[in-house]
Amino acid sequence: MVQQKQRVAIIGSGNWGSAIATIAGYNTMRHKDVFEPTVNMYVYEEIINGEKLTDIINREHVNTKYLPHARLPDNVVAVPKAEEAARDATLLVFVLPHQFILNVCKSLKDAIAPGAHAISMIKGVDVANHHISIYADVIEKSLGIPCAALSGANIANEVAQGLFSETTIGYRASQRGLVDYYQKLFDTPKFRVGAIEDVSGVSLCGALKNVVAVGAGFVDGLEWGGNAKAAIMRIGLMEMRNFALEFFDGVKPETFTETSAGVADLITTCYGGRNRKCAEAFVRTRKPFHVLEAELLNGQKLQGTETTKDVIEFLESHGKVDKYPLFKTIYDICYNGLDPQQLTERL
Amino acid sequence: MVQQKQRVAIIGSGNWGSAIATIAGYNTMRHKDVFEPTVNMYVYEEIINGEKLTDIINREHVNTKYLPHARLPDNVVAVPKAEEAARDATLLVFVLPHQFILNVCKSLKDAIAPGAHAISMIKGVDVANHHISIYADVIEKSLGIPCAALSGANIANEVAQGLFSETTIGYRASQRGLVDYYQKLFDTPKFRVGAIEDVSGVSLCGALKNVVAVGAGFVDGLEWGGNAKAAIMRIGLMEMRNFALEFFDGVKPETFTETSAGVADLITTCYGGRNRKCAEAFVRTRKPFHVLEAELLNGQKLQGTETTKDVIEFLESHGKVDKYPLFKTIYDICYNGLDPQQLTERL
Repeated sequence: MVQQKQRVAIIGSGNWGSAIATIAGYNTMRHKDVFEPTVNMYVYEEIINGEKLTDIINREHVNTKYLPHARLPDNVVAVPKAEEAARDATLLVFVLPHQFILNVCKSLKDAIAPGAHAISMIKGVDVANHHISIYADVIEKSLGIPCAALSGANIANEVAQGLFSETTIGYRASQRGLVDYYQKLFDTPKFRVGAIEDVSGVSLCGALKNVVAVGAGFVDGLEWGGNAKAAIMRIGLMEMRNFALEFFDGVKPETFTETSAGVADLITTCYGGRNRKCAEAFVRTRKPFHVLEAELLNGQKLQGTETTKDVIEFLESHGKVDKYPLFKTIYDICYNGLDPQQLTERL
Repeated sequence: MVQQKQRVAIIGSGNWGSAIATIAGYNTMRHKDVFEPTVNMYVYEEIINGEKLTDIINREHVNTKYLPHARLPDNVVAVPKAEEAARDATLLVFVLPHQFILNVCKSLKDAIAPGAHAISMIKGVDVANHHISIYADVIEKSLGIPCAALSGANIANEVAQGLFSETTIGYRASQRGLVDYYQKLFDTPKFRVGAIEDVSGVSLCGALKNVVAVGAGFVDGLEWGGNAKAAIMRIGLMEMRNFALEFFDGVKPETFTETSAGVADLITTCYGGRNRKCAEAFVRTRKPFHVLEAELLNGQKLQGTETTKDVIEFLESHGKVDKYPLFKTIYDICYNGLDPQQLTERL
């Protein structure tokens, strides 16, 4: 049997999207038996110094706006229309801000190849009308194709520099036969890919870690030291896992405690991330989060506080908030004026 | 039935011993229904500015040498002979450097009360003649009494300052009825005690974390960033757990991935500890570890490198070293001149 080669399209080209494109481009060339070598990358068109960003990328092979210090492989081609980038693609990599997902999926519907499948690197959860969804499910539902998730301790700039990292792919039972493609597309000696049959767990790790990171940032602001910070992280990891097990089917507890998407990404985020940073500044300055976001994040968005709000409103609508005392305390500090000094009192 | 009150003796009075004595002293007063209020603390006698350390402690209620910034409760009494400190004690808390254990236990044999039991806070493992033991087993065997273990993300100075911490007690099946005493002796609103029936797992967490911390320190010295550090910690945690499951009976995997003794202490140690610090300096300066220990640790001992050696020699004698590639790589960097740049190549 001659197997069809996978045609890869990357839908998104921010900091993380560009970093993962460097890996995907490298690997499609390395595994020509499995992949068509050209990797289209959907780039939302912007004008940079009078020139189109797609033109700059395709001439210089650098995303000068979002990942200026890394060279993209020549076989990664910037395409300014999502449906053109995804034309006949069999393997779609979604890596764009969640607010654009639904519109982009709509435009892709008629472009993708029969039997196509997807993998999502989108962070966060979609909460509406007392219902919570991961974005892999949103994509799956919108396009009618199976969608895996990739998440891990993956600071984009470090990955792009070729520093050692691990990551985790959470896949669906229907994607078991496709895991080998995902591994081949992303695994390198410096970017090690693990896989686990748990798309919800992997996705929720990427969303809920940001809630815990806000708590870790409070500890830093309070100057409570290493013991307290590790305690908040441990308790947070348990609440993350319990939340996933309570509200999603097929979640594996070990996704949280054993994988790069789980415990490792939590560590990276609680020591290095932007949520931690703003939460620390919140305690020190008592400025509102939207002010700190503007002052400290250089245009990036603060996900932790928003996810905290989504999660607590969802839990309250289900009468389950009391089972998540750390999440609730973080919420009350962010939104209800609770003194950060009271961070551990309900734990 | 009138239950006998527990008479507590703390065997050891260094930095951590003194910190835990502040808690034990506070709790025996708080729970007078369960404990005799006086807590004897064995203090190895030293002369400080011409005065006996025990006299200073008993007059000023401060261990001026090892924990100068914390006040000991008045009911903690420094005693310069171990057998006097332990006279009629029913609950012995061992918290002294491991090299003194056997001699101290010998001197205690005739002093302790019938039905006495113990809890160990001693770090490290005892490796000799292809055999590996935790110190709780060494104490149990030496004294013929059951011995639990306490370990956690517990930087002593932070605990003594009353900053929030968690800890974990690993107990034996034969100690199930005693766990309530341990909880009451140590739990406070700022020092939260969890318990799990796994004395080996809790003890091994305290020992093996230091091996991983050496690896984390290498990453810091190499400046490989947050992804790589989290990856080393995650892989290290898995090797810690697998080692315990392979060579000890009754180990619970969740001791490693869910408790303060496991994942939380690993985090604290890999970000703040002395093993991390010396390993970072080793990469930056290439000075031998014994020199760095003398230069950086102010008289404290480096446990990580020694434990690494013990563990690898034990694994080699069992033909199992290949199953622990991170431990082996750390060993080869420390002892066999392997370039730290090769830290991740065998993983």
